[in-house]
Amino acid sequence: MREPRWLSPAEQRAWRTHLAVHKLLMHRLDRELHAHSLSLNDYEILVNLSESPGRRMRMSELADVTIQSRSRLSHQISRMEAKGLVTREDCRDDRRGTYAVLTDEGWETIQRVAPYHVGGVREHFVDRLTDDQLEAIEAAYAPIVEHLKKLR
Amino acid sequence: MREPRWLSPAEQRAWRTHLAVHKLLMHRLDRELHAHSLSLNDYEILVNLSESPGRRMRMSELADVTIQSRSRLSHQISRMEAKGLVTREDCRDDRRGTYAVLTDEGWETIQRVAPYHVGGVREHFVDRLTDDQLEAIEAAYAPIVEHLKKLR
Repeated sequence: MREPRWLSPAEQRAWRTHLAVHKLLMHRLDRELHAHSLSLNDYEILVNLSESPGRRMRMSELADVTIQSRSRLSHQISRMEAKGLVTREDCRDDRRGTYAVLTDEGWETIQRVAPYHVGGVREHFVDRLTDDQLEAIEAAYAPIVEHLKKLR
Repeated sequence: MREPRWLSPAEQRAWRTHLAVHKLLMHRLDRELHAHSLSLNDYEILVNLSESPGRRMRMSELADVTIQSRSRLSHQISRMEAKGLVTREDCRDDRRGTYAVLTDEGWETIQRVAPYHVGGVREHFVDRLTDDQLEAIEAAYAPIVEHLKKLR
């Protein structure tokens, strides 16, 4: 390997600040969701299913959009099934496929909890940034998202 | 609860882009570390210990800086002990305390792997941002880090 190009102090500060804000924010939002008997992982699944036609997604697609392995997602869905939030259903047109389907209770849960979660996202993130800063974050990160998606 | 203040389209784009870049980036860097038989969690522990006096930290402090529960950290350290990267030592001056200590093998591992990891951080993040963008990210996120630290 060639001589490593270590990060400059300014690069290091930006990188570490990005890591810190994300970790602290996820920790905080997760904790706030616990008051509603949900984890941040539960919430992410509920949001994705609630926004999908028929309130259902193939497990493979759900693993893909939530960027986790099939086996990790499968454990997650089992825990949510035990809580009555989702069920599994076989795909009619694909014998190998399984859907994760939002239950009525799952739907009511996301409707009830979403306002609190959005309140937390505002209080701890969005409302602490100006419109220019929000725009700068999107402009800086969107091309990186595209780059990383191509590598998957 | 008052009427929820849902995110505007611009706010939602910034928030979702932040979430997406982080998740994809962590997934990618974790995968690149696997080529060196490490996870991103292992790497974070190794970095923290390697930068500490005596290459050691109290478990409670290490849990604090890596923002995870004592029990989760304890499992993590056990896995790293099995790989020969760290050991546990009782604190001499505090009968309740335990240190996590970097082994020679852990030290050699971080020295060997760090250049590759920094290369990945550059390739997938830092080198895709201008100096102004790096500065804007730090300026936007540093006050949020301070806010969230106070809540812990």
